[in-house]
Amino acid sequence: MAPFDDVTTPTLVVDLTVLERNLASMAAEARGRSVALRPHAKTHKSVEVARRQLALGAAGLSVATVGEAEVFAGAGVDDLFIAYPVWADRDRAARLGALAERTRLRVGVDSAEGATALGRARVGGANIEALVEVDSGHHRSGCRPEEAAVVARAAEQAGLRVCGVFTFPGHAYAPEAAAGAADDEGRALEAAGAALEAAGLDSPVRSGGSTPTARRTSPGVTELRPGVYAFNDAQQVALGTCGPADVALFAVATVVSAPAPGRIVLDSGSKILGADRPDWLEGHGIIPSLPGAVVISLSEHHAVVELGAGNDAPPEVGRHLTVVPNHVCNAVNLVDEVLAVRDGMVVATWPVDARGALA
Amino acid sequence: MAPFDDVTTPTLVVDLTVLERNLASMAAEARGRSVALRPHAKTHKSVEVARRQLALGAAGLSVATVGEAEVFAGAGVDDLFIAYPVWADRDRAARLGALAERTRLRVGVDSAEGATALGRARVGGANIEALVEVDSGHHRSGCRPEEAAVVARAAEQAGLRVCGVFTFPGHAYAPEAAAGAADDEGRALEAAGAALEAAGLDSPVRSGGSTPTARRTSPGVTELRPGVYAFNDAQQVALGTCGPADVALFAVATVVSAPAPGRIVLDSGSKILGADRPDWLEGHGIIPSLPGAVVISLSEHHAVVELGAGNDAPPEVGRHLTVVPNHVCNAVNLVDEVLAVRDGMVVATWPVDARGALA
Repeated sequence: MAPFDDVTTPTLVVDLTVLERNLASMAAEARGRSVALRPHAKTHKSVEVARRQLALGAAGLSVATVGEAEVFAGAGVDDLFIAYPVWADRDRAARLGALAERTRLRVGVDSAEGATALGRARVGGANIEALVEVDSGHHRSGCRPEEAAVVARAAEQAGLRVCGVFTFPGHAYAPEAAAGAADDEGRALEAAGAALEAAGLDSPVRSGGSTPTARRTSPGVTELRPGVYAFNDAQQVALGTCGPADVALFAVATVVSAPAPGRIVLDSGSKILGADRPDWLEGHGIIPSLPGAVVISLSEHHAVVELGAGNDAPPEVGRHLTVVPNHVCNAVNLVDEVLAVRDGMVVATWPVDARGALA
Repeated sequence: MAPFDDVTTPTLVVDLTVLERNLASMAAEARGRSVALRPHAKTHKSVEVARRQLALGAAGLSVATVGEAEVFAGAGVDDLFIAYPVWADRDRAARLGALAERTRLRVGVDSAEGATALGRARVGGANIEALVEVDSGHHRSGCRPEEAAVVARAAEQAGLRVCGVFTFPGHAYAPEAAAGAADDEGRALEAAGAALEAAGLDSPVRSGGSTPTARRTSPGVTELRPGVYAFNDAQQVALGTCGPADVALFAVATVVSAPAPGRIVLDSGSKILGADRPDWLEGHGIIPSLPGAVVISLSEHHAVVELGAGNDAPPEVGRHLTVVPNHVCNAVNLVDEVLAVRDGMVVATWPVDARGALA
């Protein structure tokens, strides 16, 4: 990408050509396998991106919070799944009820207590569907597959309509782990779905998928929920999920200091790249124009770069560089807007509509 | 702190009693040593906190970006130091010129190129003072102390008025490192200041200080720039800079899942706690009500907690807990407002005025 000489840094830019290719490719993948695609909007938080996903055939959106659901429902999205074990306190119960009156609404549930609390959201007679979250090996939230029927019964008793099971195979985020995680995902969804059916509960939806596993999920999966694929990031490049040319989102940074031989400092710190760095990933982002360079540390407003052997002519102070964040979801959440570019030219400014919609 | 049963989680709360004690204590430290206190506002980004710091005698504020300077100048703060090697492109040059007409303005410079670019900001005749940044051992930005005179001369030639030197002893952020870093800081500032004086340049300001070193800096330091001390965080507790009772800012989280014995999941993920975790720090925050529990991993909306041996009665799903973030500056930057509490009661909502003011 061009260095965007005229933008004020640090800022985030989206390459529309790459974004559109990524969206079309995942849409084709889902269509070819006759599974529903319900992209996770927590990655982009953007009505502009959501509209493109829906135009390409997405069944609806996945979101992480009631607040995100409100943003996308407000933009006219009429099929939303809060893929999270939502705790419906009084405030959220009222908001869920209001949401369910304007959009088809599914929510996650992984405990009888959570299901009972969600039942309160039906005070207005709103129709909320529940999916039982199961743990397929990531060991975050989600009940064990064999407990799914117990949770589903509690949800039915609370007045929710159970329509299936879901999981997030997050243990795919490690080198060489995607194939095994996809197998785990398929087994967990199958076991949980079978448990629901054995208990006499209908279970048509078996929802899974992450960006590393989306193209590997097993035949029994009926719905995919990848998010990062729209933009990709340094984690996906390192995992081999995508190539460097598939990255659609970059930070544009300025070299603000070149204080020692072989070291430069950029203004893209953790307040724009995010501080995520899993143990298996070296550095805090990729600098495409400086192969071999490593972002060895981030402060809030500094990225310290060791240039490495191949970079004999270090970029001078004042030069713009692009940096691929490690984890794009957290980077996008740090800005109010992103610049949409095509062929190196800024063509639009897109708001990050659901930035900070944490609750 | 009380569990704040009525707030919608996740959210950040500030305990005013602790905040006021922290502010008063650092103000007394500076007063007692006859050094200027110029708190770094990138921690709180809050006009409410800044006003309290100034009322307690702070000489002005430190900020990290031109955008932060604009927010605080807009609130009437009339003495600002952008403690950063600012690169003055056309946009920032114009903004710096406008700022300097309404407030006393100091900026950092660590290279001749940066100084020359800053000279452009004087087009309108604005009076901008420069401090030369030197590296005292953190190896981020900052020239070597013996190069300070070269950078200072370039700044003078660019039309800036050089008034001293500054450093950030960030290598204090490691176990048992604060005393050594404070010594390094004092030596670097002394050497750089002497280099300026030998070159015939006035150098009255020798500005240093971080929260871990602020109470240890050497006699030659004339100004302290700690930021985190206002709130403190899990890093400062681990470093021994403060005790657990000195933490003024917490996330309030809900237990959303208790999927396995000994494990609970909170809704305080990396989108509210921030993902910072230095290698020397275990876990992603402190849960005061669960001693021995460890936040073993963060996703964007999940904090996975291993309860550990001492917690025989795990908190039930739906319960509120408070969590101390690892690095408070990045946590505060993730929200639009914080709840100000006193004696466990919410008494005000404070906007994070400079949130996202990255450029």
